[in-house]
Amino acid sequence: MMNRPLLLKDFAERAETVFARQLVVGYRDGERHVRTVAETIERARRLASSLHRLGIRPGDRVATFASNSLEHLELYLAVPAMGAVLHPLNIRIHRDEIRYVIEHAGDRVVFVDSELRDRLPAADTLEHTVTIGPGAGLDHETLIADGEPGFEFPEIPEDSAAAMCYTSGTTGQPKGVVYSHRSTVLHTLLQCLPDQYGLAERDIVLPLVPMFHANAWGLPYASLMVGARLVLPGTTSAPSEIAGMIAAERVTFAAAVPTVWHGISQLDDLPDVSSLREVVAGGAPLSRDLLTRLDRIGIPAIQGFGMTEVNPLLGVGRPPARLAEGSDEWMSARLSQGRPMPLVDVRVDDSVGGELLLSGNTVARSYYNADEQNSDRFTEDGWMRTGDIVTRDHDGLLRLVDRTKDLVKSGGEWISSVELENAIMAHSQVLEASVVAVPDERWGERPCAFVVRTAGSTLSSDDLRAHLADEVAKWWIPDRIEFVPEIAKTSVGKFDKKRLRGLADLGEDVAR
Amino acid sequence: MMNRPLLLKDFAERAETVFARQLVVGYRDGERHVRTVAETIERARRLASSLHRLGIRPGDRVATFASNSLEHLELYLAVPAMGAVLHPLNIRIHRDEIRYVIEHAGDRVVFVDSELRDRLPAADTLEHTVTIGPGAGLDHETLIADGEPGFEFPEIPEDSAAAMCYTSGTTGQPKGVVYSHRSTVLHTLLQCLPDQYGLAERDIVLPLVPMFHANAWGLPYASLMVGARLVLPGTTSAPSEIAGMIAAERVTFAAAVPTVWHGISQLDDLPDVSSLREVVAGGAPLSRDLLTRLDRIGIPAIQGFGMTEVNPLLGVGRPPARLAEGSDEWMSARLSQGRPMPLVDVRVDDSVGGELLLSGNTVARSYYNADEQNSDRFTEDGWMRTGDIVTRDHDGLLRLVDRTKDLVKSGGEWISSVELENAIMAHSQVLEASVVAVPDERWGERPCAFVVRTAGSTLSSDDLRAHLADEVAKWWIPDRIEFVPEIAKTSVGKFDKKRLRGLADLGEDVAR
Repeated sequence: MMNRPLLLKDFAERAETVFARQLVVGYRDGERHVRTVAETIERARRLASSLHRLGIRPGDRVATFASNSLEHLELYLAVPAMGAVLHPLNIRIHRDEIRYVIEHAGDRVVFVDSELRDRLPAADTLEHTVTIGPGAGLDHETLIADGEPGFEFPEIPEDSAAAMCYTSGTTGQPKGVVYSHRSTVLHTLLQCLPDQYGLAERDIVLPLVPMFHANAWGLPYASLMVGARLVLPGTTSAPSEIAGMIAAERVTFAAAVPTVWHGISQLDDLPDVSSLREVVAGGAPLSRDLLTRLDRIGIPAIQGFGMTEVNPLLGVGRPPARLAEGSDEWMSARLSQGRPMPLVDVRVDDSVGGELLLSGNTVARSYYNADEQNSDRFTEDGWMRTGDIVTRDHDGLLRLVDRTKDLVKSGGEWISSVELENAIMAHSQVLEASVVAVPDERWGERPCAFVVRTAGSTLSSDDLRAHLADEVAKWWIPDRIEFVPEIAKTSVGKFDKKRLRGLADLGEDVAR
Repeated sequence: MMNRPLLLKDFAERAETVFARQLVVGYRDGERHVRTVAETIERARRLASSLHRLGIRPGDRVATFASNSLEHLELYLAVPAMGAVLHPLNIRIHRDEIRYVIEHAGDRVVFVDSELRDRLPAADTLEHTVTIGPGAGLDHETLIADGEPGFEFPEIPEDSAAAMCYTSGTTGQPKGVVYSHRSTVLHTLLQCLPDQYGLAERDIVLPLVPMFHANAWGLPYASLMVGARLVLPGTTSAPSEIAGMIAAERVTFAAAVPTVWHGISQLDDLPDVSSLREVVAGGAPLSRDLLTRLDRIGIPAIQGFGMTEVNPLLGVGRPPARLAEGSDEWMSARLSQGRPMPLVDVRVDDSVGGELLLSGNTVARSYYNADEQNSDRFTEDGWMRTGDIVTRDHDGLLRLVDRTKDLVKSGGEWISSVELENAIMAHSQVLEASVVAVPDERWGERPCAFVVRTAGSTLSSDDLRAHLADEVAKWWIPDRIEFVPEIAKTSVGKFDKKRLRGLADLGEDVAR
């Protein structure tokens, strides 16, 4: 058979002929903007030609520092299609970290939303800063106006870099993952399968996950491939506004971290969101409580499991077909991390408590220019250590037990911080809980729990310990429980355990 | 990212861990046999080890001459996974042609159903004949019993040959197409997308299309990848038996040529086939009449369009999402050949009346060892000429107008034999019609129509011409109309126009 490189430009070129009239919708400052797919791809061609004129060549890095917008989508299309490398920057991390990441990646150009311009640090590698929206100097619209609508996307090898993304770095410096065209095309095919996201032309897709967060979980390319309508929410983040957008746009599929769905589930007057076929909760574990609450208000949720290093989807918590809807096993499967997608190989290394190892075309081979970290994470025989502790059942469903570094080793035995957190959160007066290990002279390590109570609750440590006595082994029950008003999160919405460990060190060494 | 070869064995290895308990069902001589996926793959490993012991090595050809059965499925898994090349032989073609194909492919082993053994010719390249079912000499079950259950499928380059298939040859000798692992893996991903077949674990899939017909349209590999249950019908072919099987197995997805669906649509007492989510009609155009009849009896049909040279699916007649269900445009889209799947490029060459040209990873690069035919069909810049005349609308939907060789050139202008056939078949007293060109002194060529009337009809040529006056341009109306009891079909169910042209040459040169 013919052997043609798998390239992201193929999706754009096909969309121009078969989905030309499909719409893409973008919100900016509360205003709704609409373009066709044909216009969007023409703008991407113009943008690519202007970038080419600025000296950008295949392999060069082009950064973005922007919200989920039509312009950001144009960059998602233009930059990889011209052979350059798209590098979306996390807008929520510290200036110093942003500067580090830009320079480490060697970004030559950055596109920045005008309202984010103040937060973008100077960096040595940057030659051009392009403003999206009003601003001085080079701007996005001028590059498009000056560009060639007929710019041809080049044919490049399929293992060329298409994009890169840095992990949010809960430990150490951020680490970069470089996605190839081959990997991203295969990921797009895989994630659209019926038992994964099941995306189709009839879908209206709302990526609430930021476009700097692991390629917005692949949704821009997936939507383009199947011809679904994309709705890009800009900076919209209040639950009521998101719910209103879902209702107004008749969104069928949306993706966000659990916190967003939690906010929406708490709304007093939820608008009509019955257009939703499915929503994905990812980036942090979905709790049984939240899933049940979403079921009750008619938002069909599914857990997405992945990581920056796998492009990023690994699987979804879709119950095996043999399970009866509503059964305990079915519910447990929905709370699982699912089966790994086809073409991804899995090993569970029991010598380190059940660490998940991965291998496949959508799995990173190394971190970018990070030789020291690489030897820890990537084995010589072609596997990536994920740092996740999992179990696997007879249906192949993975269940995340913990992170290797978050396990608590007490008296030589492992305590899963995640299982303990779930047991604590099962109490009706607990909103959130996070468990970290603290050093202990006698036991080596002991768990310390940080707990956020529901409004008005007077729950005490002893009440909670009494509750836990029914839920976990006696030696798992934390001696130390700290009630806090909130738990710090990382820039992508995960519990910031690095910070909690610091807090635990500062705290008094008494149980309260 | 990691770069691992795309191999069919990946589907089997994943299925062993995540779909081990799924069932596969096979009918043989009216008996129902059931195995699990785990058993099936273990049997495939045993078979591969025995073939290895017989001297079969990567690249060697292994032929099959068999119905759709559990054993045939085992060969579909074992042969490509061990690096050898599966070559399913068309059991309906002439002995001489079968012999030609075996020798041209260089088949070293053939697996044959015991009841087909008499129809299998001797051939010079064959070293072993293995019987499926009772018989003398080597047999399938002994190879499995003697095989190693832990045989490891080797890692081979992804462009290695996985299977080959010969076109049924409506002109000249059969021509072989060699499918690579890469092509077949990509085809499997593409065909399972929601807007293509949309296959999922919950499906129960019945391939009525023979396994020798272009990889059974990809359904064995697709079902294995998504974990769907396969039902293999053996030699079942009577419409009432097929309908009974659909009802008994609660089949959700079935694929067959239109003739099969026509037979089922004519049943007086159709059993409960409400389990069907969708059926594919492919291999020959689906008529509006049949589609409407199937709609009426609750069998949701979709047209599949493909060819041996594209592995074989190119697209399905699924209406664009913007069309209102039931509208004229929607119905017309269902009767179209659909949009080409992602990753397949399309050109329409208007210099030859609108010939469809294809390029992509699922498109043949050449016919196997056929240098002369190749220069006609494959361009130097990487396109395959399909010989199909198509139109393409603003949604990218292809509509098959004719085959280049079936167009009628009358007075320098083209008449589409397919459009003319459809116009004739739109008459309520016409069951089937086929149009071929006959030489004409004045006009160069004129259309000659072969027509099968419905039972009891006394429709005359003049009646039909009067009907056509409302349907087509006056100069399209055939001078010559031949009423025949039936129209000869090729071994895969298409009108045998080669034979009809012969009949037209014999016939009287008068209009009746």
